Amino acid sequence: MKLISGGICAAKGYKANGIHCGIRKNRTKKDLALIVSDVPAHAAAVYTTNLVKGAPLTVTKAHLANGTAQAIICNSGIANTCNADGIEKANAMCELVSNTIGVSADDVVVASTGVIGQPLNLEPIAEHIQELADGLSENSGEAAAEAIMTTDTVKKEIAVEFTISDTVCHIGGIAKGSGMIHPNMATMLVFITSDIAISPAMLQKALSGDIANTFNMLSIDGDTSTNDMVTVLANGLAGNDEITAEGEAFNTFMKALNTVTVNLCRIIAGDGEGATKLLECKVSGADTEQAAKLSAKSVVCSSLLKAAMFGADANWGRILCAIGYSGADVDVNKVDVSFRSTKGEIAVCRDGAGIPFSEEQAKEILLEHEIEILVKVGNGPYSACAWGCDLTYDYVKINGDYRT
Amino acid sequence: MKLISGGICAAKGYKANGIHCGIRKNRTKKDLALIVSDVPAHAAAVYTTNLVKGAPLTVTKAHLANGTAQAIICNSGIANTCNADGIEKANAMCELVSNTIGVSADDVVVASTGVIGQPLNLEPIAEHIQELADGLSENSGEAAAEAIMTTDTVKKEIAVEFTISDTVCHIGGIAKGSGMIHPNMATMLVFITSDIAISPAMLQKALSGDIANTFNMLSIDGDTSTNDMVTVLANGLAGNDEITAEGEAFNTFMKALNTVTVNLCRIIAGDGEGATKLLECKVSGADTEQAAKLSAKSVVCSSLLKAAMFGADANWGRILCAIGYSGADVDVNKVDVSFRSTKGEIAVCRDGAGIPFSEEQAKEILLEHEIEILVKVGNGPYSACAWGCDLTYDYVKINGDYRT
Repeated sequence: MKLISGGICAAKGYKANGIHCGIRKNRTKKDLALIVSDVPAHAAAVYTTNLVKGAPLTVTKAHLANGTAQAIICNSGIANTCNADGIEKANAMCELVSNTIGVSADDVVVASTGVIGQPLNLEPIAEHIQELADGLSENSGEAAAEAIMTTDTVKKEIAVEFTISDTVCHIGGIAKGSGMIHPNMATMLVFITSDIAISPAMLQKALSGDIANTFNMLSIDGDTSTNDMVTVLANGLAGNDEITAEGEAFNTFMKALNTVTVNLCRIIAGDGEGATKLLECKVSGADTEQAAKLSAKSVVCSSLLKAAMFGADANWGRILCAIGYSGADVDVNKVDVSFRSTKGEIAVCRDGAGIPFSEEQAKEILLEHEIEILVKVGNGPYSACAWGCDLTYDYVKINGDYRT
Repeated sequence: MKLISGGICAAKGYKANGIHCGIRKNRTKKDLALIVSDVPAHAAAVYTTNLVKGAPLTVTKAHLANGTAQAIICNSGIANTCNADGIEKANAMCELVSNTIGVSADDVVVASTGVIGQPLNLEPIAEHIQELADGLSENSGEAAAEAIMTTDTVKKEIAVEFTISDTVCHIGGIAKGSGMIHPNMATMLVFITSDIAISPAMLQKALSGDIANTFNMLSIDGDTSTNDMVTVLANGLAGNDEITAEGEAFNTFMKALNTVTVNLCRIIAGDGEGATKLLECKVSGADTEQAAKLSAKSVVCSSLLKAAMFGADANWGRILCAIGYSGADVDVNKVDVSFRSTKGEIAVCRDGAGIPFSEEQAKEILLEHEIEILVKVGNGPYSACAWGCDLTYDYVKINGDYRT
């Protein structure tokens, strides 16, 4: 398996584009993306568990009920959530795609991201949908990745190449997400494309299994979004024998998918609103998978620990504190904590109590941009990893007046 | 019932003092408090549910097993938590009090607040305990309130006078708490004194019942502290017939206690680390008490909403979002939202969707220091109130390098 370029168009038979259509006032910011498969693809998705759901998710869920899709349209700027006419407008977006590129409206995945509760104006989309379609290309995946960004400061794309029984297959993905990220059985917006042949049921199984250890272990700010969604399309153009059951081929696909999703998690966490650091909390030695996951996620969610990491302050007491209130069944008197970065590793807590360490060395390690927080909670067999970021002045700035 | 001055010494038979003994380097900051009842008092307490517990809590819990106490000692600066010798040192603090003022060590409540994981130096306490005791006075409650402060910017004290069958009774309280506040069956440090006569069992019942609607509905930053504790002493010097069962007298005491605790909640939330605003989320119309509480608490815990309030931005979508992921069983299509302050009230969301409103008027309302967020989730009979504060640059600053 190897990482390759090409993002959402890395797999065979996908074209994409992204433009500024006018939903956003800022003309330099693209706000409309389109991704199309040459042939109908099997599709699967997971959605936010927030009771407040964006209208596009309701429409997408209905369209994916038969396990197939061929196109994805996504706008940024307006979430199309908490609007009385939301469903109507999400359906209209699918119709516009259908009328322009000739795929069935039922085969369109629709997504929106941005401000909640402000009406979505369809006019800019209707006026520019032809321009968007005309620009569809295998080389424009980057434009699509840019068009779905909101407060993101970097575009998020990744792709891998791997083989199943000597057949070369690909998975590519793009994501948007920077704030309101605390996935719970779903996540921010992620679109994944593959040329693998796989049944809809196995595709859903792969996706649902994967996100439990990837996007659901990611938190920027503890706020589960109303518009979270991950969709994956698999158009079968790689030519492998269709995967219809568990086995070696399915495991290979799962591994490739996991490479894509873990990379997207790391990129999203590192680009959290206002973030200066990516935090990876790796918990080991737990007696149960739940204890490992609860502990890891609680640490990356702690506002106090996040602020300490911004200040490169080795305030490990806040890690113990976060594990203590996480609900995880662990013996807090057996917890060891170390910090690690490219500058080295330093142990700061052994058996739940502080040990002498060089504050100078700790500071040097914590001044790096990617920080690993290594926590051993006992001698059990379970481990987990969670991703997050530091809490900074810029998070407050970005969210103090987001709508203007 | 009326609010009176006097704080922790407002009730009959209590003396207090607070000094700088040297646990903190800053000589202008008091760091050691002592509160003493003239006679042994009935006592009750609730403690943090964090698995990581400060050593003082373990010692206090043992001392309160018989339902009586006579003195409270509390230092700030060091939490005496996650230290191998923590219990030993907490016991030593009680012995110092016992040897100096002649109460039994078993009747001493001990508490510490400050940095986790750094050893507590007993020397400054031993050297200054006599000075602390010599200054005990009915007029020094304020000094005790100051000595337990950490990042607090204002001292927190309150007192009420009320009557039970024509007997005048009093309750006074002080609190410290500014960060690491997200109580769960307990809270930050609160010491309450009363001259009422009440059995230990009824005192505990009153306290446990009260905090479910007061301190457990308060959040500054989502981090449940390791050293949370609320203790109440009742020395009986008011001369009322001892309360030993539910009834009118018990209800009057509960109401007075609630006045003290709600006021302390409001003061704590308004003085949250870096806070510029007190947020009160009042949820009504819920079908269950749990739905009302979960909704209210989720709103005041949302980092995004807290940042929006800092910016005086009427971003009500974040309120809907927070209710949606709160776990509360509510129909999000029936949610109404208004903002209220001394500048007026403005409705911004009706039946889960935005309604036109004056951004200018909303800004004027939200620029005030005390903001009520009024949420109606349906037509059910249950309501709840939660307290919080905005998320500001200063929260990040305070916590980016707390230990230095």
